[in-house]
Amino acid sequence: MVNFVHPPAESLQLHHVLSALADPVRLNIVQVLHATQGGLNCTAATAPFGQVPKSTLSHHFRVLRESGLVQTTKRGVENINTLRWDDLERRFPGLLSQILQLAPR
Amino acid sequence: MVNFVHPPAESLQLHHVLSALADPVRLNIVQVLHATQGGLNCTAATAPFGQVPKSTLSHHFRVLRESGLVQTTKRGVENINTLRWDDLERRFPGLLSQILQLAPR
Repeated sequence: MVNFVHPPAESLQLHHVLSALADPVRLNIVQVLHATQGGLNCTAATAPFGQVPKSTLSHHFRVLRESGLVQTTKRGVENINTLRWDDLERRFPGLLSQILQLAPR
Repeated sequence: MVNFVHPPAESLQLHHVLSALADPVRLNIVQVLHATQGGLNCTAATAPFGQVPKSTLSHHFRVLRESGLVQTTKRGVENINTLRWDDLERRFPGLLSQILQLAPR
């Protein structure tokens, strides 16, 4: 059983969040998660990135998780990914919405 | 004579800017430049980072320049660094002020 590591909200670092969002594929994953209510399992979340190798996507999800952007929760046999919107908003007010607004679509 | 490369404002990329700002030393350089009117020569701009090797600082300035955050201009024997605030504001409205507001001081 995989144990996912999620940093507590109060320890999130601005440079980790910026670094996570500085990769176009990761920024795009965050856009997809933001546009989705209730979280996405890994397959659904990664469907738009079919051309990206699965191992690369796993790496991107790990970076997103470790920077505090994404929460991964085991639900049965699925891993459900959600944006940690409230935590990020509390720690870095306005940052994520600003970046999502400016991101290429 | 060194030729500094500055990307045109319209070709600045969000992920390059975020990547440049994702390093704490570079973010700090940007804070110092932001707090300074009229630009800083390299010595003055790097004075707060005395513990960082000069070659490392040169690398950071190159990343800042290539991402479009900083303009380096030769003035006599000095290289004067300024933030490309207007270009960044036009291309990514509100982004830099938001990040500077959230950055550790």
